[in-house]
Amino acid sequence: MMLFSILQKDIKSNARTGVIQTDHGAIETPIFMPVGTAGTVKGVHQRELLDDTKAQIILGNTYHLYLRPGIDLIQKAGGLHRFIHWDKPILTDSGGYQVFSLADNRKLKEDGAHFSSHIDGSKHLFTPENIVDIQRVIGADFMMAFDECTPYPCEYNDAKKSMELTHRWLKRGIDQFRKTKSLYDHRQFFMPIVQGSVYSDLRRYSAETIASWDMPANAVGGLSVGEPIDEMYSMLSEVTAILPSDKPRYLMGVGTPANMLEAIAMGIDMFDCVMPTRNGRNGMLFTREGIINIKNQKWSDDLSPIDVDGSSFVDNYYSKAYLRHLVTSNEMLGAQIASLHNLAFYLSLMNEVRMKIKDGTFSVWKKDMVKKLSQRL
Amino acid sequence: MMLFSILQKDIKSNARTGVIQTDHGAIETPIFMPVGTAGTVKGVHQRELLDDTKAQIILGNTYHLYLRPGIDLIQKAGGLHRFIHWDKPILTDSGGYQVFSLADNRKLKEDGAHFSSHIDGSKHLFTPENIVDIQRVIGADFMMAFDECTPYPCEYNDAKKSMELTHRWLKRGIDQFRKTKSLYDHRQFFMPIVQGSVYSDLRRYSAETIASWDMPANAVGGLSVGEPIDEMYSMLSEVTAILPSDKPRYLMGVGTPANMLEAIAMGIDMFDCVMPTRNGRNGMLFTREGIINIKNQKWSDDLSPIDVDGSSFVDNYYSKAYLRHLVTSNEMLGAQIASLHNLAFYLSLMNEVRMKIKDGTFSVWKKDMVKKLSQRL
Repeated sequence: MMLFSILQKDIKSNARTGVIQTDHGAIETPIFMPVGTAGTVKGVHQRELLDDTKAQIILGNTYHLYLRPGIDLIQKAGGLHRFIHWDKPILTDSGGYQVFSLADNRKLKEDGAHFSSHIDGSKHLFTPENIVDIQRVIGADFMMAFDECTPYPCEYNDAKKSMELTHRWLKRGIDQFRKTKSLYDHRQFFMPIVQGSVYSDLRRYSAETIASWDMPANAVGGLSVGEPIDEMYSMLSEVTAILPSDKPRYLMGVGTPANMLEAIAMGIDMFDCVMPTRNGRNGMLFTREGIINIKNQKWSDDLSPIDVDGSSFVDNYYSKAYLRHLVTSNEMLGAQIASLHNLAFYLSLMNEVRMKIKDGTFSVWKKDMVKKLSQRL
Repeated sequence: MMLFSILQKDIKSNARTGVIQTDHGAIETPIFMPVGTAGTVKGVHQRELLDDTKAQIILGNTYHLYLRPGIDLIQKAGGLHRFIHWDKPILTDSGGYQVFSLADNRKLKEDGAHFSSHIDGSKHLFTPENIVDIQRVIGADFMMAFDECTPYPCEYNDAKKSMELTHRWLKRGIDQFRKTKSLYDHRQFFMPIVQGSVYSDLRRYSAETIASWDMPANAVGGLSVGEPIDEMYSMLSEVTAILPSDKPRYLMGVGTPANMLEAIAMGIDMFDCVMPTRNGRNGMLFTREGIINIKNQKWSDDLSPIDVDGSSFVDNYYSKAYLRHLVTSNEMLGAQIASLHNLAFYLSLMNEVRMKIKDGTFSVWKKDMVKKLSQRL
């Protein structure tokens, strides 16, 4: 069975719709994947993810899951799907990004990343091989290659060295992937990651290297790490021109609704980002009309629904003033409502994108939407 | 329409079942009321309260609501029911307990309680009269009289003086209640509170005073504040013998499942307590077989359902090991699951109590259940 089938291509951009077939069901693309860091999308029940946000695939963080609850328990449970009771597809990142943003005493060597746990200080080593093994135990439908994610800014020579290491690690990861099998009764796909910081020649070289491995899906990493937005789009444009168009392209860690629409126009199919949940917990709501900071005094006595156009039950069930009260009072329900709203919004936006591509109006619609989505209400 | 109808009386105890009719619907008694402190039962969506815990009435805290979001906004929303989108009955406490446990610079005078907000230090005065006015704005179906809740231990003379003040305040509260009307289109009932610490003669005197006012429901306060459990039951026994049996009796702030069964046997009809949610957030689960501390190492790889006998969807949806992982990792979902489980358990226990009273087996059943409910698993 083909992993990816393209359904429609936009005439005026590189946007396309498609379907990814996994053993945990189909994923319609373009798609956004809610981030379920440690086996939970923060503040959201699994049944809410399914019924209210209409999530089709969620992401797990290998670094977090490896440290807590640990892979022994996940294996005993029969994999992450069963452990957390989520029967739809899961993608796990490789842990590379978290090692460099969270872990203590981290040291990068040729063999892998040595680090201490940010939880209890225990020492660990992630290698391209054991990251495959760990993701075999987790049982993710999509496993990511172990990479180094360069920070921004990053000197050219450092970015080049880092990219070359990522490429060497990729070969080791693919070897290990081919030597091993799924532990459970479903297929797993392995995804390599393009790096190269903000340097066009490095990005092109990395994309060519990644493409040459002919894996069933490809990812772009190391963007949205602080670089100016135009640099991100510029890099993305270089990379998507090279990554094969008949395979899904995944832009890691991006982004705002407007970012996603622009990236879709360049041919990106998959996204993940903590913004809907993390910013939601802090009172930021994404809507079709723009961004609401619910903590703002202007919403204090606004008894209108959170979002009359919203697709989740919370949107017309609770008022802005009530949500503001909850968020400013640090009530858990505030974070729950905002997370649910934002995730449902991200997912419904992807649904609308697919319809607009299908009916041929994506590019015109996008231009208008990007402006609206980015404004502050 | 009668507020309270008794349906069945237990032959071997003072337990009874009944129905309380409010303009927001009927309440079957004995009943437990989830605590929705500041307009939210922490970590639980209103639709979950309805559909999953089967709550029939919830409690709001006047102190919290008055400070945040403030009564102007609640009035603008058309009352608390509308503000939080909860169409079933609500009971609000009088704020007395919170003033003495949370507020700063509190000073008790004859006129009322002077205090500073624990949130922003602003100065406020609660009087028996304005507490009625505030609860009129909130629009609770049941309004509590402003009382002083004595701490434990409390010297006899202090307890006596405090009780006398509570009685004087009660008269002022009832006067104000009778002078004012509901602001919305539903009836409100006013409930006086028995005090008297752990002194039988004070408790009896207070119960007689409260009973003499002939209000439609009566409450017992100042228990479960640190006194030995036998003293609580002893006081309760004195008080329930005096409070009229044809009116609902509400035991404030109690308690564990076992506490509730014992109190029901004495003729108590209504309960509220933060234990299901507060202790739940800390990993304590109440079940038919006893109490689980999910943080305990013994549950670390127990992949069995949280509670096979549980009445909420979470009970057979998630495993103990998964819940333990969430709670030990401080994931919001852990608090959400534990709160939902505990509330559903409390409510389903009340449902079972009603059935046992109905079929005449309450007393035998209770003896067995109290033992089981109290043991640590």
